[in-house]
Amino acid sequence: MNAKIRPLSGFPELLPAQRVVEQQVVDTLRHVFELHGFAGIETRAVEPLDQLLTKGETSKEVYVLRRLQEQEGGKDAGLGLHFDLTVPFARYVVENAGRLEFPFRRYQVQKVWRGERPQDGRYREFTQADIDVVGRDTLSFHHDVEVARVMLDALRRIDFLPGFRLQVNNRKLLEGYFLGLGLDDPAPAMTAVDKLDKQSPEAVAALLVEGGLDADLARRCLAIAEISSTDTSFVQQVRDLGVEHPLLEEGLTELAAVVEGCAGLVGPRVEVVADLRIARGLDYYTGTVFETRMRGHEALGSICSGGRYDALATDGRTTYPGVGISLGVSRVLVPLISRTGLVADRSVPSAVLVALVDDAPEARAASEAVADALRARDVACEVSPSPQKFGKQIRYAERRGIPFVWFTTAEGGHEVKDIRSGEQVTADPAAWTPPHEDLRPQVTSHDPQEMTK
Amino acid sequence: MNAKIRPLSGFPELLPAQRVVEQQVVDTLRHVFELHGFAGIETRAVEPLDQLLTKGETSKEVYVLRRLQEQEGGKDAGLGLHFDLTVPFARYVVENAGRLEFPFRRYQVQKVWRGERPQDGRYREFTQADIDVVGRDTLSFHHDVEVARVMLDALRRIDFLPGFRLQVNNRKLLEGYFLGLGLDDPAPAMTAVDKLDKQSPEAVAALLVEGGLDADLARRCLAIAEISSTDTSFVQQVRDLGVEHPLLEEGLTELAAVVEGCAGLVGPRVEVVADLRIARGLDYYTGTVFETRMRGHEALGSICSGGRYDALATDGRTTYPGVGISLGVSRVLVPLISRTGLVADRSVPSAVLVALVDDAPEARAASEAVADALRARDVACEVSPSPQKFGKQIRYAERRGIPFVWFTTAEGGHEVKDIRSGEQVTADPAAWTPPHEDLRPQVTSHDPQEMTK
Repeated sequence: MNAKIRPLSGFPELLPAQRVVEQQVVDTLRHVFELHGFAGIETRAVEPLDQLLTKGETSKEVYVLRRLQEQEGGKDAGLGLHFDLTVPFARYVVENAGRLEFPFRRYQVQKVWRGERPQDGRYREFTQADIDVVGRDTLSFHHDVEVARVMLDALRRIDFLPGFRLQVNNRKLLEGYFLGLGLDDPAPAMTAVDKLDKQSPEAVAALLVEGGLDADLARRCLAIAEISSTDTSFVQQVRDLGVEHPLLEEGLTELAAVVEGCAGLVGPRVEVVADLRIARGLDYYTGTVFETRMRGHEALGSICSGGRYDALATDGRTTYPGVGISLGVSRVLVPLISRTGLVADRSVPSAVLVALVDDAPEARAASEAVADALRARDVACEVSPSPQKFGKQIRYAERRGIPFVWFTTAEGGHEVKDIRSGEQVTADPAAWTPPHEDLRPQVTSHDPQEMTK
Repeated sequence: MNAKIRPLSGFPELLPAQRVVEQQVVDTLRHVFELHGFAGIETRAVEPLDQLLTKGETSKEVYVLRRLQEQEGGKDAGLGLHFDLTVPFARYVVENAGRLEFPFRRYQVQKVWRGERPQDGRYREFTQADIDVVGRDTLSFHHDVEVARVMLDALRRIDFLPGFRLQVNNRKLLEGYFLGLGLDDPAPAMTAVDKLDKQSPEAVAALLVEGGLDADLARRCLAIAEISSTDTSFVQQVRDLGVEHPLLEEGLTELAAVVEGCAGLVGPRVEVVADLRIARGLDYYTGTVFETRMRGHEALGSICSGGRYDALATDGRTTYPGVGISLGVSRVLVPLISRTGLVADRSVPSAVLVALVDDAPEARAASEAVADALRARDVACEVSPSPQKFGKQIRYAERRGIPFVWFTTAEGGHEVKDIRSGEQVTADPAAWTPPHEDLRPQVTSHDPQEMTK
């Protein structure tokens, strides 16, 4: 077939040595999610369009499907590609409620599609990694702490990525504060706080005044958004504002519990901040809310967000509350790969190239036997495609980043050469194993300070 | 959000304990592919429509994409979901040719979409696992043997699946035979052999006679399709037909090499047959062709097919020959799961449920500390969501298939109970590990004889 070259904007693809980076990230996420008892599921890529459009604001981003030979208005009409993993998960929970055990912990790493304008960190096809805990009728608060801890545990283990800052807040805290200030409807103030990310406090305050608040009240509404702390000292800072409301108390208690619950995981690579400016625009969040910034790449915005919703899904009779957090895998990796050259040290899984002595079938069989012996001990390897001069076979390995070349000598002996050091030693195919760090491709870590230069 | 229940025919989804089966299959495939030096890549889900339609016959199955808010004929018009992994791989090779090393071994496990009528073993969304080796300008024949060996090595290791029979043939062999018989154009005879799968030899011979062959020649054309052998004895059987042609010789040599090269992998779970009836309809195959049947489920047709193509891709100046084989992961698993109840022994990754003594924050912290200690040694576990009576906590574990429940005693001691045997022993959270077979969910193997009852 004649393959035309047509790169598509917004549909990033990776070269083999870059794909290793993504695969290792996904492997670590999955490993940690499973250690914490989260079950992996996948949902179909399509949902009925009416289901996708209940989320209003994002409707314009949906890709609609049609079979090429289908008549207009055929019965397939009305299917679209999912634009997140929450809508399909909510549907999966309701559809399979009778066959699931609650509380149900699940993780899901899949591609999603949005027809939005491609830009830095925004793609039309990208991979997300979601964890959620969902209950039937009720879901204890401690799961809010749990999902934060699980994601932190995963992020801190991916040591070739820059550091992360998890910013936590609680919508009860904000809502209670606004009610305590005497506002009848806390929604406009909530929206205003959410805008502080992109507009100045003065501009946002002006909007509140336009909405009918007096200037002093508008200022007091925004005062809470200036509070942040990496410990629970934010509680006293809020109390110092002199506002009281039962919902505010509940929010303070919950937020303090998340910060305290995560304390054991904080380290050089991950920090946790109670940041009272975080509101999350989406109105289905009802308590804890999360956002996450990547150190040195704050302009990408939040790369890992989520929160608590009292009704992740409902079938009319039963309500399924949930709490979850979603990592934008592509959103983190694609910019890092292109900006910092984040890449694995080889483009093939092979740790060893088994050289070929000559063109005789016996020579190939002998090299294949060595390869099979290595594979039996989980050493990835490949046999030279052709019996070129050994110098050429070594360059074949070099170009792929394969660290070792295996030679069979004329006398039937075996030698293995580390082509980086040049060291060559006799070796037994049934016993030799490369050093642990050479067994699999290694991703080079990059200093986040260097990246932005 | 209000999630409506709408199962979609042809878009299979799995419950958590079923998804474990699929995940373990994909993990084994990936492990074996990497052991043999194949690099994993992923390609975008969409391709330009004109690219997807070069394959003619399948055009009616393509799902076309449109952004919901897009005007008719907008610039996104003309994108479709890929219906296999070969078309995108060919495009990827040409697009990245300057940045790849050839011969290039790659594996790719991804979903594909076809708008065809859903039926047993045929889906609208399904997962395929492809391996291919592609060369620039040339590709040695031994890679034909290699891809067969790699797929056999993978299939034989997935011990909870029924056995497999790899059927191999060579189009040079068939074409040379037909040319040796004196046919000017071997294509109609090739097509006829391909039809023997669904029609009687008499009906197929009648078609050839209709096409202008005399009855004896038609009979001789089909005689070769009756030959098969699990060793190289097919060579003599072909010679006994008394037809000679250089291309026939070449095909015989190549097919014998594949059968001999695979001999070391044949065992109770996988067999290899030179089956001279296998033609593969697609006309881009030029040498070796593969099909695979699953024992006890032959009616599903070939679940793993492929072959050699002299031009996997071309950019006009350079041609990229390739050889590959593609396993229909969903095609194997979805019918097995629904027919035989193939499933993992638990619905969660957790090997241990850490029980909760009471509602005090200290009690939860103590249980979490036990869980963290177990996780530090890669033991997946979860903490009870609430401090119910221990009998209820044990039933919580039972319903999920979690084999062990961990109790902290009032005196600060630790005991772990195997809830299957009832055995309870004292244990140290910093040292205890479950037996290896309990560390991860196990998939129950099913006797293929039992399945079809």
